[in-house]
Amino acid sequence: MSVTAPLGFRAAGLAAGIKKGGERDLALVVNDGPSRAAAGVFTRNRVKAAPVLWSEQVLRGGRVRAVVLNSGGANACTGPAGFQDTHQTAEKVAAVLDDSAGEIAVCSTGLIGERLPMDTLLAGVEEAARELSRDGGLPAADAIRTTDTVAKIAFRRATDGYTVGGMAKGAGMLAPALATMLCVITTDADVDAATLDRILRRACAVTFDRLDTDGCMSTNDTVLLLASGASGVTPSEDELAQTVTDICADLARQLLLDAEGATKAIAIEVVGAADDEDAVLVGRAVARSNLLKCAIHGEDPNWGRVLAAVGTTDAVFDPDRLNVAINGVWVCRNGSVGDDRAKVDMRPRDVTITVDLGSGAHTATVHTTDLTADYVHENSAYSS
Amino acid sequence: MSVTAPLGFRAAGLAAGIKKGGERDLALVVNDGPSRAAAGVFTRNRVKAAPVLWSEQVLRGGRVRAVVLNSGGANACTGPAGFQDTHQTAEKVAAVLDDSAGEIAVCSTGLIGERLPMDTLLAGVEEAARELSRDGGLPAADAIRTTDTVAKIAFRRATDGYTVGGMAKGAGMLAPALATMLCVITTDADVDAATLDRILRRACAVTFDRLDTDGCMSTNDTVLLLASGASGVTPSEDELAQTVTDICADLARQLLLDAEGATKAIAIEVVGAADDEDAVLVGRAVARSNLLKCAIHGEDPNWGRVLAAVGTTDAVFDPDRLNVAINGVWVCRNGSVGDDRAKVDMRPRDVTITVDLGSGAHTATVHTTDLTADYVHENSAYSS
Repeated sequence: MSVTAPLGFRAAGLAAGIKKGGERDLALVVNDGPSRAAAGVFTRNRVKAAPVLWSEQVLRGGRVRAVVLNSGGANACTGPAGFQDTHQTAEKVAAVLDDSAGEIAVCSTGLIGERLPMDTLLAGVEEAARELSRDGGLPAADAIRTTDTVAKIAFRRATDGYTVGGMAKGAGMLAPALATMLCVITTDADVDAATLDRILRRACAVTFDRLDTDGCMSTNDTVLLLASGASGVTPSEDELAQTVTDICADLARQLLLDAEGATKAIAIEVVGAADDEDAVLVGRAVARSNLLKCAIHGEDPNWGRVLAAVGTTDAVFDPDRLNVAINGVWVCRNGSVGDDRAKVDMRPRDVTITVDLGSGAHTATVHTTDLTADYVHENSAYSS
Repeated sequence: MSVTAPLGFRAAGLAAGIKKGGERDLALVVNDGPSRAAAGVFTRNRVKAAPVLWSEQVLRGGRVRAVVLNSGGANACTGPAGFQDTHQTAEKVAAVLDDSAGEIAVCSTGLIGERLPMDTLLAGVEEAARELSRDGGLPAADAIRTTDTVAKIAFRRATDGYTVGGMAKGAGMLAPALATMLCVITTDADVDAATLDRILRRACAVTFDRLDTDGCMSTNDTVLLLASGASGVTPSEDELAQTVTDICADLARQLLLDAEGATKAIAIEVVGAADDEDAVLVGRAVARSNLLKCAIHGEDPNWGRVLAAVGTTDAVFDPDRLNVAINGVWVCRNGSVGDDRAKVDMRPRDVTITVDLGSGAHTATVHTTDLTADYVHENSAYSS
């Protein structure tokens, strides 16, 4: 299923040999139309990988025939030669599909600062083209994994006859915006590129953009939305936006649960904010506190570290009117000791921290994880 | 030595019983004059502990007779009752010294969100007053430790006859501004409060403010500078500023080397910046990358994570002109692969990461540490 759940899409995922261990490392997703409308959202990091620079240009045209994705190398910080590698990859996909490279998006993920083994990769593209099928969604999702322990897929079939599917990867370097990730969402709805663009931005803003596992922003983040039009259905913009947002939220949750070393899924729920920006600002500040993330790992409802993080922001609040609940127990009232912290049950995997700024009616939820020794171990040894 | 190295100061440090384990937990530093000129710099966190709110008021008067400091409890997020506890502590010190509470500064450090055991603390103040001596600098420095493994002290005797001494504590929650810390600096130079204030701000800006071990800003940070005038010497402002800055740099280095779980002392040296603000901004962004800090822990010269962090800032630079050296090897040139990363010797404790923005002549160095499993362990269990 995943990206091949909607009509009009074929995919493949295989081991081209880019990764040394023989795991799958190359995916191809092809839109057979009749429409090729597409939209994309990319990392806001100013250091952008070659495939991001390339795909941004492709998406300006609003049309995508195919997306080629590799794990085993990010092709970031590789200079003009790295950009040439991306270009050559797109040309190869265009050749095997008898199409134009200008409508081929490219995504890469893996270690920064190393060139891709191009002979291996281009041979893999030929093989992937031969393996393209309506059943290729799952192997494609598997092929884009790096430190991900599981493939992430989702799909929804709408009652009025169109379908949305998606796949994503991402386990570390997860921070806005976006989370560090590659994501391809497909639909057989018949919608123009400008509408897809608005829908994708709305969906990302409240899902992937509110995921912050380690505060580190990647060079390769890419989220693509491709529409084949093969169902012949054109849903309302609001309806399709809701379905796409559901898919993004589903995938974001999967990313969170698979974050490197994480044992807790923490929701920072900010209420009583003067505006949405304040709510997100405070949520992010709390989500980035290493000390708090360690405390939650130790199942310690350390609300003092929540307040210390809130206090670093310039959001509208009075320190003496802050309230904080952990898993529903208001352990901090009016900036001071509240209900007995011993009442907080910290054992569940899901932990909800509610921060009431007492300054308005706006809310936002930012998702993060605990900080663990496993995260340190995994990221101490990644490139060696 | 430490705070009692200069003439005119007595100190004491003892176990009052605030900490359960019987370690020292209460310090008293008294300025016997003839001058009482003083300056203070405090946390910029908007959630301020009661002793910070109190001492800010005291320092507005520019005079300090004594500083009382406790570990074993931060007295932060304790509401009006906690502020009353601080007030009562100052009144007690004033009573035993037969002086005014309005010239008694108070500092606390430890767990946020718990009231101090006031009977124990006030009895400790009486005992500390009896133990005050010219030899009390070291026990005082020992008494303000929390997770610090060693006491931090420093002193300099200037050739023209005045002396500066200092003590500090801080091991976690170290981030600007300030680093999470308490620090008392003393001098027997004869200088007015306004001059001390300028000198202290200059010194902190280039020392404690450029230390960022875990990005977490505390509620209790306090740095005090007290002048007794007992040497009769009035150095030039620039000269005294240099001596105080040396003391702060010395103490900042000690804080860095004792940071929780750290095995590496990392200097992020930003050069080629368009202005000082850009240099500090980029230094801080790199210093806060958990992924990079894990890589350095694993002795992996992962310059891609440096670029990913630089790219999150809005400093003036061209991504294709960034150069990065690690321990002197230019592993990244023009935003791409540079010299062989295998040439980098990552074994020394000190690691220098040089980021050349290629946009001007301004520089700044921010100091941080690696992120380790020990940091996680220590902070998962702090309050339990």
